[in-house]
Amino acid sequence: MSGIITSTEKRLVLVSGRAHPELAEAVAAELGIELGETESRTFANGEIYARYGESMRGADVFVLQSHCPPINEWLMEQLIMLDALKRASAKRITVVAPFYPYARQDKKGRGREPISARLVADLFKAAGADRIMSVDLHAPQVQGFFDGPVDHLFAMPVLLEHFRKKLDPATLTVVSPDMGRVRVADVWSDQLDAPLAIIHKRRDPKVANQVSVHEIVGDVEGRVCLLVDDLIDTGGTIVKAAEALKAAGAIGVVVAATHAVFSHPAVERLSSDAIDEVVVTDTLPLPPEKRFDKLTILPIAPTLARAITEVFTDGSVTSMFDGAA
Amino acid sequence: MSGIITSTEKRLVLVSGRAHPELAEAVAAELGIELGETESRTFANGEIYARYGESMRGADVFVLQSHCPPINEWLMEQLIMLDALKRASAKRITVVAPFYPYARQDKKGRGREPISARLVADLFKAAGADRIMSVDLHAPQVQGFFDGPVDHLFAMPVLLEHFRKKLDPATLTVVSPDMGRVRVADVWSDQLDAPLAIIHKRRDPKVANQVSVHEIVGDVEGRVCLLVDDLIDTGGTIVKAAEALKAAGAIGVVVAATHAVFSHPAVERLSSDAIDEVVVTDTLPLPPEKRFDKLTILPIAPTLARAITEVFTDGSVTSMFDGAA
Amino acid sequence: MSGIITSTEKRLVLVSGRAHPELAEAVAAELGIELGETESRTFANGEIYARYGESMRGADVFVLQSHCPPINEWLMEQLIMLDALKRASAKRITVVAPFYPYARQDKKGRGREPISARLVADLFKAAGADRIMSVDLHAPQVQGFFDGPVDHLFAMPVLLEHFRKKLDPATLTVVSPDMGRVRVADVWSDQLDAPLAIIHKRRDPKVANQVSVHEIVGDVEGRVCLLVDDLIDTGGTIVKAAEALKAAGAIGVVVAATHAVFSHPAVERLSSDAIDEVVVTDTLPLPPEKRFDKLTILPIAPTLARAITEVFTDGSVTSMFDGAA
Amino acid sequence: MSGIITSTEKRLVLVSGRAHPELAEAVAAELGIELGETESRTFANGEIYARYGESMRGADVFVLQSHCPPINEWLMEQLIMLDALKRASAKRITVVAPFYPYARQDKKGRGREPISARLVADLFKAAGADRIMSVDLHAPQVQGFFDGPVDHLFAMPVLLEHFRKKLDPATLTVVSPDMGRVRVADVWSDQLDAPLAIIHKRRDPKVANQVSVHEIVGDVEGRVCLLVDDLIDTGGTIVKAAEALKAAGAIGVVVAATHAVFSHPAVERLSSDAIDEVVVTDTLPLPPEKRFDKLTILPIAPTLARAITEVFTDGSVTSMFDGAA
Amino acid sequence: MSGIITSTEKRLVLVSGRAHPELAEAVAAELGIELGETESRTFANGEIYARYGESMRGADVFVLQSHCPPINEWLMEQLIMLDALKRASAKRITVVAPFYPYARQDKKGRGREPISARLVADLFKAAGADRIMSVDLHAPQVQGFFDGPVDHLFAMPVLLEHFRKKLDPATLTVVSPDMGRVRVADVWSDQLDAPLAIIHKRRDPKVANQVSVHEIVGDVEGRVCLLVDDLIDTGGTIVKAAEALKAAGAIGVVVAATHAVFSHPAVERLSSDAIDEVVVTDTLPLPPEKRFDKLTILPIAPTLARAITEVFTDGSVTSMFDGAA
Amino acid sequence: MSGIITSTEKRLVLVSGRAHPELAEAVAAELGIELGETESRTFANGEIYARYGESMRGADVFVLQSHCPPINEWLMEQLIMLDALKRASAKRITVVAPFYPYARQDKKGRGREPISARLVADLFKAAGADRIMSVDLHAPQVQGFFDGPVDHLFAMPVLLEHFRKKLDPATLTVVSPDMGRVRVADVWSDQLDAPLAIIHKRRDPKVANQVSVHEIVGDVEGRVCLLVDDLIDTGGTIVKAAEALKAAGAIGVVVAATHAVFSHPAVERLSSDAIDEVVVTDTLPLPPEKRFDKLTILPIAPTLARAITEVFTDGSVTSMFDGAA
Repeated sequence: MSGIITSTEKRLVLVSGRAHPELAEAVAAELGIELGETESRTFANGEIYARYGESMRGADVFVLQSHCPPINEWLMEQLIMLDALKRASAKRITVVAPFYPYARQDKKGRGREPISARLVADLFKAAGADRIMSVDLHAPQVQGFFDGPVDHLFAMPVLLEHFRKKLDPATLTVVSPDMGRVRVADVWSDQLDAPLAIIHKRRDPKVANQVSVHEIVGDVEGRVCLLVDDLIDTGGTIVKAAEALKAAGAIGVVVAATHAVFSHPAVERLSSDAIDEVVVTDTLPLPPEKRFDKLTILPIAPTLARAITEVFTDGSVTSMFDGAA
Repeated sequence: MSGIITSTEKRLVLVSGRAHPELAEAVAAELGIELGETESRTFANGEIYARYGESMRGADVFVLQSHCPPINEWLMEQLIMLDALKRASAKRITVVAPFYPYARQDKKGRGREPISARLVADLFKAAGADRIMSVDLHAPQVQGFFDGPVDHLFAMPVLLEHFRKKLDPATLTVVSPDMGRVRVADVWSDQLDAPLAIIHKRRDPKVANQVSVHEIVGDVEGRVCLLVDDLIDTGGTIVKAAEALKAAGAIGVVVAATHAVFSHPAVERLSSDAIDEVVVTDTLPLPPEKRFDKLTILPIAPTLARAITEVFTDGSVTSMFDGAA
Repeated sequence: MSGIITSTEKRLVLVSGRAHPELAEAVAAELGIELGETESRTFANGEIYARYGESMRGADVFVLQSHCPPINEWLMEQLIMLDALKRASAKRITVVAPFYPYARQDKKGRGREPISARLVADLFKAAGADRIMSVDLHAPQVQGFFDGPVDHLFAMPVLLEHFRKKLDPATLTVVSPDMGRVRVADVWSDQLDAPLAIIHKRRDPKVANQVSVHEIVGDVEGRVCLLVDDLIDTGGTIVKAAEALKAAGAIGVVVAATHAVFSHPAVERLSSDAIDEVVVTDTLPLPPEKRFDKLTILPIAPTLARAITEVFTDGSVTSMFDGAA
Repeated sequence: MSGIITSTEKRLVLVSGRAHPELAEAVAAELGIELGETESRTFANGEIYARYGESMRGADVFVLQSHCPPINEWLMEQLIMLDALKRASAKRITVVAPFYPYARQDKKGRGREPISARLVADLFKAAGADRIMSVDLHAPQVQGFFDGPVDHLFAMPVLLEHFRKKLDPATLTVVSPDMGRVRVADVWSDQLDAPLAIIHKRRDPKVANQVSVHEIVGDVEGRVCLLVDDLIDTGGTIVKAAEALKAAGAIGVVVAATHAVFSHPAVERLSSDAIDEVVVTDTLPLPPEKRFDKLTILPIAPTLARAITEVFTDGSVTSMFDGAA
Repeated sequence: MSGIITSTEKRLVLVSGRAHPELAEAVAAELGIELGETESRTFANGEIYARYGESMRGADVFVLQSHCPPINEWLMEQLIMLDALKRASAKRITVVAPFYPYARQDKKGRGREPISARLVADLFKAAGADRIMSVDLHAPQVQGFFDGPVDHLFAMPVLLEHFRKKLDPATLTVVSPDMGRVRVADVWSDQLDAPLAIIHKRRDPKVANQVSVHEIVGDVEGRVCLLVDDLIDTGGTIVKAAEALKAAGAIGVVVAATHAVFSHPAVERLSSDAIDEVVVTDTLPLPPEKRFDKLTILPIAPTLARAITEVFTDGSVTSMFDGAA
Repeated sequence: MSGIITSTEKRLVLVSGRAHPELAEAVAAELGIELGETESRTFANGEIYARYGESMRGADVFVLQSHCPPINEWLMEQLIMLDALKRASAKRITVVAPFYPYARQDKKGRGREPISARLVADLFKAAGADRIMSVDLHAPQVQGFFDGPVDHLFAMPVLLEHFRKKLDPATLTVVSPDMGRVRVADVWSDQLDAPLAIIHKRRDPKVANQVSVHEIVGDVEGRVCLLVDDLIDTGGTIVKAAEALKAAGAIGVVVAATHAVFSHPAVERLSSDAIDEVVVTDTLPLPPEKRFDKLTILPIAPTLARAITEVFTDGSVTSMFDGAA
């Protein structure tokens, strides 16, 4: 046979956009490596430029970006970083999007709407992504929007560990803040072996027009309520739910969520007396102005780093979550 | 300018697989047309053959198949029919799948599972489908699995019309048979202006191992309960729910579902005394052995025919469901 | 350079659908491995579910399925298995289809027909297949239906070895049972250095309508005739050919075919006195009711196992068949 | 509804490469139109340039090229013409390739060969072709190489009409010049209701090494033999067959083929005394040096023009060949 | 033939993102239509939502967006609008991007850079665009980045008409502000029949390090200089060029550019005494703070409207620019 | 875990078409290997056949072809070689096209033109290419025509090394022969630290009709002029430029170009007294009839071999050209 034959090696590289450098540094530290050298800039007219300062040939590259506001900037930055990797002969490119952008627009609720979560999957593909890694997708069906492997990680083990130390299952009720989150609450109820309640928003039959009341389905009186959601955006639903729970006799209300979007006026709302504690992870950056007394932030970096290692070494991501859904 | 210039016409054609000929005939009758001439056969070794008896050139073809057992046979038949249309120069090909096959496998619940609902969308695409039309998808996110237009129809107007005549909102409670269907029940609750209850299956804290109890979240005592679901397969969940409702004091239990899969032993279960009426549509064929006294079957053909007309004439499918989700 | 660098390994995994477990076990035994742990189920409504019990990350996976009836079930099972592998980050996925399904529908014989053999290639691709391995394609052009490598294996060496021991070239004539198989018979004629005859079915010029006669082109009187075909389905063509040969003075008729489809009433027909022996391989399962006295079954597993090894080790499949076409 | 609404028209345009202008003119004349204005040039270094002199927006364009030598030049010219049409907003683009290039390389006869006929289909697709029209494909499976409609036309009606006037079925035998063409000969045999014979090339058992003899399978003595093939390239096979037939007592040998490739030394060979007439169509150009006394050329333009009309008007190409395969 | 046959109509719809509503209104006014009803919103966390208020089925839709800062927001808005149109069954979707975003990143100037202009074309395609329309691409090769028709419009006729009235060819010199724009200047020189000069930036051979001088190649003394460029971003190059021209004896400096990006501090710089007039079009919005005394703004809407009309009516865009390159 | 696990190797193979065997041999010699065994033939009717004489499974194959006339033959040969590699299970396929074919047709200069350089990229992709390597693309934007990595090499280091030894920067002026090449000349001017001049072809204002004059922009009197271009085709532009330079007082004219296309009558023209030396590389073959006294040919093989090595070993191609553009 003609040619040159050599043994092969593989190389893991982690690069990051500019959205959440602390998270990228934390993941790199967990992996025991330096971040791949990346130059990212925004030009005067808003166009973004990205370039790698070292060879990416043949590398197994993970491109981490956290999709906080300005979310479209960071998404475009990541797409541009993917294009540069594809053209730089990277061997395999994995998008790491701890908070999947546009995950809530996952269906046409009405005619002539986009399905932006699918669009985002298509854009990642078009730009060169071979794989996606994300945490707690708003709907698990989003996995099916990408034509390739999606590693779906769960923050629940991290959150559960925190709550198991602090809450007594005997007095605990898991509460879903609305109809759309019941499934998640069901899993928590199962894991904590605690009963379930649901907040049901419906039109007030006694008042004309579209005035809605927050009806509580299930028993909460005299119980500590754990409100669970995958994300908190402006906090409106959560705080209304907490107030309804307290009004119904709950003796405590704690909130758990993976993604702390915290759009204005979330901080103000979550500081409400109706809420006793808010526990989130740092999939999204939490600058000082988004922090407040009752907030507890748990690190997601160990989870991401372990998953990246499993992917790189052909191990098993599934085994990380045995027991979780 | 060189060449020949003529005015253009367009032609709507409806063809059907062999799974549910009554439905195809009913849709054609609603449209006032004959079904397109199709020859379908299964050879001795199980391979399927399909051929059209008339030209399909330039036609806007709707390929109706109902995905009842043997479901994989009917799916392959439809794929083969699509391939033949693509090669016969049909202009536009719409899959009409009133009951979307494999819709329940819409995510990876555990590692190393398929997402068969996405696979089905990919197979339709590979075989030549330009568009999909379906009724009451198990998860609306399935729309996003197809890279093209999906016309998502709702049976709710048909079902609602039936119940509005028969049930009194004042004594009615809408019930979701499990956590996964709460969202659908919520829409019914809103449309009928009736309160909501939920059946919550959880481990019995008083008994060891994985024995589960059916906990009812919400008030049902002295009320007529409307159990709603998108489909009834073996009927296990529904009948357990009905029994729990009756045990909790419900004075009546009626069941509404779009898709009557009715796998064995559904008929036996649904004949239970705990259930007073079962109302379904005929998206799937209901041969005599799947029929029973309490069963009411509403026709889906008018809904399909109207949607096909709107698609063909560039009208609006959205406008068919103003008010529904 | 940043990152982690390690040496790479590759892993061969063989998984199997439920159609022909004996063949899968035989191939695994030849390879000296266990079959990859696979859970396959059919639900009450006929939908199939498949999941792997061990990690498939980075593996070079061969997905064996034998396409006997119910052929569409087994095809869908294999497509679902492919989808699950793609999403489970397998590195390379090879479809092993010893008998390529729908291979006979390889062209439009008339207008508005499908080309189902191409459709099958497209479905394999859509589901995630990178490569295909098959034995004795009905038409070798089917290789060109797949956009990627096709390893086309031949059963001829296995069959030839059997016949070389038993038949005397001096009295042997190779016979093609119809016009479509002449090319295969020609290769056999060349390998065995024996003359060729052909059965030509044509309208009887002396009788009205479409009555056909089996005209023998070539000399068969006083000779042992070896009827060769790639597959035997219902056996009609073969037994008519055998009867014509005996009527024309043949002193013996033996039949060789790779794929024993044996649809009803093949067993009855092949038991005809006109045939002395039928030799096939086990590319398709042969349950007791498809076996009969004159049948000889040669194992195809060694051929598949060797080809899989060549593919995995970047060896040469071509070199396995030097001399054959 | 907003916007501008107008009725639509469609426009048929026929453009041609430079390989066979007479054929293009003949087809245009049959259609009663002028050829679309096209500027084609070859630059000094061999690169080809093509541009249209009139708007192609929205047109239904047929791009005719005849693939005679220099075949790669004409193929590239056609690909460039397709690219220009795609970018010029043509609505639908049909490749008209009366003689499909590289049709004989339709499978891997040995390992590490290309399947060039599939490659050509892929190149047409990549350049912008929506559809293909061709005459008498060497293997009908080539239809399945293109992912879209292929209109497969047959020259047989044209050729049959000629022979029906001249040959007496009572003394006629249809002969296949080798094993690969038996299927075509079978159709002719059926159409003309004449018996079949086959030339079988095999190693001479009496002589060492690879010397081959032309064995005639079937009766030809005292008969007029019609040798049929889809194409004649260098004429070697045909003339050897004719000589063998005459040697075996044939009283006449006429040759029918659709594609007159006539590579050197075909003209010399076909002028052999063993052949009485050669009948072909003009799918390929026949300049004076490729013509000879016994040659009859039948026009293919009417067939192409009728098929183009059927395609443009959404008629039926199938109906043109009722009775033919 | 079965089915329903009707005549066909086509419908032109123009919709617009939120970047430059004045331009959209102006184009609609030129076309004599209302803009298609579109609802666009940005949520609290920065995600964009878009929906159409009227049916888009079967429509020929033009999606206008002007890519000014925040450029990534407007690009994502347009991509989301495309996705919604694709899923709403629009027949044909044309991106109208008067200023093509990221056009300057059209090649890898160094290793490991992206080619963002190609990425943008891929994103448009992935989101559903069939065609692109743009004005004065920075490099005409960007046309080749899209796999489909690109209508490349020129502002030159509009700009030329302005200058022909005001400038005397006898004293005029066309000047390219740097090496990259020489080709454009050459066309202007040809159109205005005026000599050409070029500003050449090079290292000062008399000073150490990377100090660059603006060398003027060509004669400008005593002449009116017309500096031409496709776009003006921060204005640095243009004002340096103007100063060098005045220093070299130019008696007047006027500037022409199609795209007024005008990033800070362009307005300040362009107000320099070295420049006498700046003439641009309104492909990008020019809010009050980007306007200044010497600025002349020519409308691009008539050019866009005419091109849209030509595309819709299958006319000729080429004919709009006969004589221009 | 089931299966077989082994370590992996990779194998570099270089194969070549028939266009420029000397270059292929030279590259192989630089790499210290034999060329991969390839059988290439042209059949009587002009169709090309290619096959590999050794296994290509799993190999990292570089397919070198030089695109000299007959350029379409060599392009098709390379496409066929790619198809054969794809089907032979090569792991990665890199097109090595030292002179990118059709590079000059990189945009639509007028309506209804092709963009053949994009078409060529699409054809490479369709045939199986994963990557492209080329030298001095006519426009660097051609990199963006391919959806994958393009290694763009530069001959400038090789050419510069030659000129640095021979030319004195103090008396040197770099000259662009026309407007389209100014950018390249600018880089040379920068590298050699020499001033720049440009030949500007424009209509003669003193003469009617389209008579053009070659205006020199910049100072050349008494200087040695280095005319630089990426390629020389028929030599018309270069020799006209040289004559104009000499007429304007240049004391010497040397010409540098990467690609010596040398179409007739280039040799005759370049032998003009106006030119003192012509320096090119051997990216294209230079048979004796294309050689002449003043011609110097520099080898490109070392550059190609080093780039191939960097690609194979996951090194850095970028680092080969630090400092060049």
